[in-house]
Amino acid sequence: MASKEKVCILGSGNWGSAIAKIIGSNAARLDSFDSTVNMWVFEELIDGKKLTEIINTTHENVKYLPGKKLPENVVAVPDAVEAAKDADILVFVVPHQFIPKLCSSLEGNIKSTAVALSLIKGFDVAEGGGIDLISQIIKRHLKIDVSVLMGANLANEIADEKFSETTIGCRNKTVGQILKNLIQTDYFRVSVVDDVEAVEICGALKNIVAVGAGFIDGLTLGDNTKAAIIRIGLMEMIKFVDTFYSGARLATFLESCGVADLITTCYGGRNRKVSEAYVTSGKSIEELEKEMLNGQKLQGPITAAEVNFMLKNKNMENDFPLFTTIHKICTGQLVPKDLIEQMKINTSKSDEINLEKCNLNQAGGE
Amino acid sequence: MASKEKVCILGSGNWGSAIAKIIGSNAARLDSFDSTVNMWVFEELIDGKKLTEIINTTHENVKYLPGKKLPENVVAVPDAVEAAKDADILVFVVPHQFIPKLCSSLEGNIKSTAVALSLIKGFDVAEGGGIDLISQIIKRHLKIDVSVLMGANLANEIADEKFSETTIGCRNKTVGQILKNLIQTDYFRVSVVDDVEAVEICGALKNIVAVGAGFIDGLTLGDNTKAAIIRIGLMEMIKFVDTFYSGARLATFLESCGVADLITTCYGGRNRKVSEAYVTSGKSIEELEKEMLNGQKLQGPITAAEVNFMLKNKNMENDFPLFTTIHKICTGQLVPKDLIEQMKINTSKSDEINLEKCNLNQAGGE
Repeated sequence: MASKEKVCILGSGNWGSAIAKIIGSNAARLDSFDSTVNMWVFEELIDGKKLTEIINTTHENVKYLPGKKLPENVVAVPDAVEAAKDADILVFVVPHQFIPKLCSSLEGNIKSTAVALSLIKGFDVAEGGGIDLISQIIKRHLKIDVSVLMGANLANEIADEKFSETTIGCRNKTVGQILKNLIQTDYFRVSVVDDVEAVEICGALKNIVAVGAGFIDGLTLGDNTKAAIIRIGLMEMIKFVDTFYSGARLATFLESCGVADLITTCYGGRNRKVSEAYVTSGKSIEELEKEMLNGQKLQGPITAAEVNFMLKNKNMENDFPLFTTIHKICTGQLVPKDLIEQMKINTSKSDEINLEKCNLNQAGGE
Repeated sequence: MASKEKVCILGSGNWGSAIAKIIGSNAARLDSFDSTVNMWVFEELIDGKKLTEIINTTHENVKYLPGKKLPENVVAVPDAVEAAKDADILVFVVPHQFIPKLCSSLEGNIKSTAVALSLIKGFDVAEGGGIDLISQIIKRHLKIDVSVLMGANLANEIADEKFSETTIGCRNKTVGQILKNLIQTDYFRVSVVDDVEAVEICGALKNIVAVGAGFIDGLTLGDNTKAAIIRIGLMEMIKFVDTFYSGARLATFLESCGVADLITTCYGGRNRKVSEAYVTSGKSIEELEKEMLNGQKLQGPITAAEVNFMLKNKNMENDFPLFTTIHKICTGQLVPKDLIEQMKINTSKSDEINLEKCNLNQAGGE
């Protein structure tokens, strides 16, 4: 108990660098953490110089978080195993397609008592027709407990120390308190809940809803309709968690990971923006990804496809009419204005989405 | 049971006329309602002609909902008692300062078996240091049961038949179903819940939160901070209901009256807009009301003052730091950037706003 917790951050993109700024500062300030924080940096050359060397001399991630100083106790390490091998807390913050390879390299090379904290949003398609959570993939590889951190957290705003909130999902109260100490600052408020899957799933599903919100914006249907689609989306998020990962509390969806992240994503964010352009331009999602995102894939349609893959396999597409309709619009099986037609059909079928039917635990549960 | 329910709409402003369009159409279509719907219209002259006569001949409320036809079975009546005396369902949709006088005139002149549905948002200050709900004022005068209807419902969008949702709070299941039949259309989805006070209070308190959202916009603090303020506002709304009107379910706050109306109001709406201008212009709320609202009063600061009056009397200002800070900013006791300072103080005090402490009923309650 008296030994200091050593922290390793795996990833050094925009979000990874912003969280390194917070973690580095807290680790230096608090006695319970080893002040040196390793940060695994995927090595690349910037104007002929190694990014790790730039970070370790200038204390700035000039590529992914330019203009912000990292604390000097954050040390960039180009080898993931070397960075992670002595760590008690492993913070995962890499693009989610990197996770299987990264975890394979770490297998057998980390402390068996380590805990993980994943900041990665998104799913993977699982064998057998379901979906895999990123936390499950990490856990399967490393055989350690995985907590998650999600919220309305645009990295640049956090790097600017603008007031924000976030949610940690963690099953163990003691670990939860340690993670909160590591992450919380006066401008970054952390809530800890034990609904780990609910927290993680919110972070992925909200992107589907944001696609729907973008369609409504593109159709210029106004504020009422947009609010309705966001709310129905939140209901389907809750129903999804309740159906496939039962035991979550409704209160968790009112944390930053739920309603706050959903709002931000449906009013700002690239999923909303590209989906709006899908309606107004008549171009395909692929064309818009090329034009608007430099060819990067848009997360919402991918997540919608993953969710649909699972719902179809379970013959449950009709139980999630908003998710299903958004997927069908993204894949050209329906047109954007069908979104409203589907919602109207659902109205006359009465309360297809009815929270009262969801067996969610009590907010004030013991 | 076989007799047809007769409906009277008391009020004919923008929202009153939009709902008259729906109610008139449903009353004409459904056997369970008397097809003639009386609408009390506060008589005024438009280009020398009586508004009631214009409505009854052109079927258009040219002043408050121009360009939209009302169903011909909606009959404008200039005398409130005459309009209401035979009604089984009284729909109240007047500015809230008209309520005491209107109710006084109706006392003893309505059917004792009538039920009321209030669409009026806002509170009144009560004698003894508390607040009065509009539904309570109606009930006290008329001695009849009062249900409420609230949601993300901009009147013009509903008159345009754009897809929207709304929430009816009604204690009686049978009455709730009748009201739903009267209001629901394929483009206007109605949910009925039995948390009448929670539904009504959401409709008033959201305007306070929207003032806070406007301050954040004015300070250009970004998306994370705005989402955090909206979420903390929602938590204080829940806590307020739980503290002063206990027994509400958390699920009610996820209905259109809760999260959806809050979102719409915090992104669109006059409270947000004027509060943003308060920060950027340095002018007083009163000056901005003159410039931006033709001298009309802004609802959010009034509601914040009413809530503060009650909280102060109960020595509970610190239990609602967001509401209290917004009130103090509106009255010049604090400056807008203090909003963030207060939230930061609260972060270090740990979870001052903690849903887990709220004794809210289970979502899936029996």
